[in-house]
Amino acid sequence: MKNFDFQIQTRIIFGKDTLKSLEEVLKDKYKNILIHYGGGSIKRSGLYDEITSILEKINVNYYELGGVEPNPKLSLVQEGIAICKEKNIDLILAVGGGSAIDSAKAIGIGAKYDGDVWDFFTGKEKIQETIPVGVVLTFPATGSEMSTATVVTKEEGSYKRGAGGNVVRPVFAIMDPKYTLTLPDEQTFAGIMDIISHIFERYFTNTPNVDFIDSLSEGAMKSIIKNAYILKKDTQNYPARAEIMLSGSIAHNDLLGLGREDDWASHDIGHEISAIYGTTHGVTLAIIFPAWMKYVYRENIDRFAQFGREVFGVKEDDDRGKMAIMAIEEFENFLKNISLPTRLSDIDIDEKNFELMATKATEAGPLGSFKKLYKEDVLEIYKLAK
Amino acid sequence: MKNFDFQIQTRIIFGKDTLKSLEEVLKDKYKNILIHYGGGSIKRSGLYDEITSILEKINVNYYELGGVEPNPKLSLVQEGIAICKEKNIDLILAVGGGSAIDSAKAIGIGAKYDGDVWDFFTGKEKIQETIPVGVVLTFPATGSEMSTATVVTKEEGSYKRGAGGNVVRPVFAIMDPKYTLTLPDEQTFAGIMDIISHIFERYFTNTPNVDFIDSLSEGAMKSIIKNAYILKKDTQNYPARAEIMLSGSIAHNDLLGLGREDDWASHDIGHEISAIYGTTHGVTLAIIFPAWMKYVYRENIDRFAQFGREVFGVKEDDDRGKMAIMAIEEFENFLKNISLPTRLSDIDIDEKNFELMATKATEAGPLGSFKKLYKEDVLEIYKLAK
Repeated sequence: MKNFDFQIQTRIIFGKDTLKSLEEVLKDKYKNILIHYGGGSIKRSGLYDEITSILEKINVNYYELGGVEPNPKLSLVQEGIAICKEKNIDLILAVGGGSAIDSAKAIGIGAKYDGDVWDFFTGKEKIQETIPVGVVLTFPATGSEMSTATVVTKEEGSYKRGAGGNVVRPVFAIMDPKYTLTLPDEQTFAGIMDIISHIFERYFTNTPNVDFIDSLSEGAMKSIIKNAYILKKDTQNYPARAEIMLSGSIAHNDLLGLGREDDWASHDIGHEISAIYGTTHGVTLAIIFPAWMKYVYRENIDRFAQFGREVFGVKEDDDRGKMAIMAIEEFENFLKNISLPTRLSDIDIDEKNFELMATKATEAGPLGSFKKLYKEDVLEIYKLAK
Repeated sequence: MKNFDFQIQTRIIFGKDTLKSLEEVLKDKYKNILIHYGGGSIKRSGLYDEITSILEKINVNYYELGGVEPNPKLSLVQEGIAICKEKNIDLILAVGGGSAIDSAKAIGIGAKYDGDVWDFFTGKEKIQETIPVGVVLTFPATGSEMSTATVVTKEEGSYKRGAGGNVVRPVFAIMDPKYTLTLPDEQTFAGIMDIISHIFERYFTNTPNVDFIDSLSEGAMKSIIKNAYILKKDTQNYPARAEIMLSGSIAHNDLLGLGREDDWASHDIGHEISAIYGTTHGVTLAIIFPAWMKYVYRENIDRFAQFGREVFGVKEDDDRGKMAIMAIEEFENFLKNISLPTRLSDIDIDEKNFELMATKATEAGPLGSFKKLYKEDVLEIYKLAK
């Protein structure tokens, strides 16, 4: 186990009809709130009105900035920064899923910085402070409601890049599973892949002696898979929606990464696909992870054998390589069973941009840590995902 | 799943040689620090000198109060409160295990209250604020370094009682597993029982639809048992010490209790034994839990069957009662294998005080929630533990 320094300030208020807690959470703490959200769904559903009626009751000033798209854009972030500076915003309330939260986080750090917010995403600057971000979560997937990270896309040049730091964790997240009952199937299952991927990026490590967190992670993966199958049969199953919503926060709040080197190559490799084609994040992960696994498992066959045994019940075998391959097959079957694409061809992406994507993915250096991946490796992974 | 509201402010700094972080953690934040500890072991080991040399370097005033005993005493808490008020203490630094931390927490809440601190333990007053508590952990067991609770014994009448609230969580905990290498075996394994018990008190619930946290809890229990066996063979195994130390914090920081009704009857039943006989907390739990399980498992046989299957690999059987009984047997065997007593007679306690203990345990009302236990039930559990 590696040394670690771990603190989560985020307050999670979870369950049915918890939106009413917003009053207690905000009252006498904030004066100028920016509500940040995506399309019109929160207006159609009545959620927007519920929120603003609470804000009016407690007598705070509020402003709004909608229009966040999947793979949130830098231009909107810059619009938000301008509003924050002009209106002296002291809380950004993200309403929606990971895109709204990531965009709100980027606005928060940009508003406390004199230079270009993109500096945090190129690594030129380290994040020191932020306007606090609060969350009303309607879509579990990215875990951004409890995480240290934000991912934004710069339209010019199609760069999708992340930035992070402990101060970026939201101060609170209100999570009512009922909001997730109306999610379209593709979003539900792509979201589940996103949740599992946050565990994968930490679980597939070469750091020795990480048994306790391994065991928690295996438990988490088993439960997510079990509840994904329940939702596949019945998307209106509230208890399963609740389990998935909770799992999304725990999968990405760093608990399951304590004391180990994490990887993140698959995220970076997937980001290049989204940056060019606008593909849903979870869909790129469903396509890239099986390819990544096939390319890297020989680096640590025992870890993949353990994954197979503990998560999918793959039988113990002297041939560890066989166990590892079976584990990857089991995982791919799971993806197919929940109707996620597992090949680029399934979503009509051909090899035209492989070279460009592999170059861009590695332009700041090799990716990952489980196996360090250079441009040629990334190219091979795109080919395996064809 | 029940609704919940969850926030942990504690910062965990974990690993080899992390004591040096104390400088960064304290510097420019606190002026008057009370070091609170148990016997002379931290002076003999040099830890006390290491800490005070850091405090001198950053130029804070420090005072000390040693003498915390296992099952920390109210009289010492009151001494600490007097020091805090007189010296304007702004951080209590607990150095040791759960007793030092619990005592420090009680001092912290008492120093911010005009009445008798025992009011918090009788439930007369609710905790509103505290002097912050920091921790240098040398003994993993109680999880107090991240928990909301403190347990103190009032000598007059031998009352061992708990109090708690979210503000009571320590602000930081420095956790270096090397400190735990020198623990005597009984403390090591009683500590492990204490850790598992914190999972049990939450895991054995009748709240439905708590799959995700169940699965994390089962992973946690499996890992703790596995590492306990490693330590039984080799107490100097550093990686296993590290896993156990980390598990102690996670077992009791409420993560594994999210969204469910918890129980705590076994703790209360055990407390009466410690209050009269001074028995080590973990030892009373090793004796009481098997008895409690045998007395209550029929309330929810499926949950005990699940416990057996997921934690001990008990084979699926149509006869769920058989699975439940096998689970309890497996657990009791584990305790015997790590040389913990599992009967009161093993530690020379006879039935003389059963009646008195059962009366005191239930004088504020029935215990637990998995099965509500009245005086007669508690008496039966003591008898089963004979």
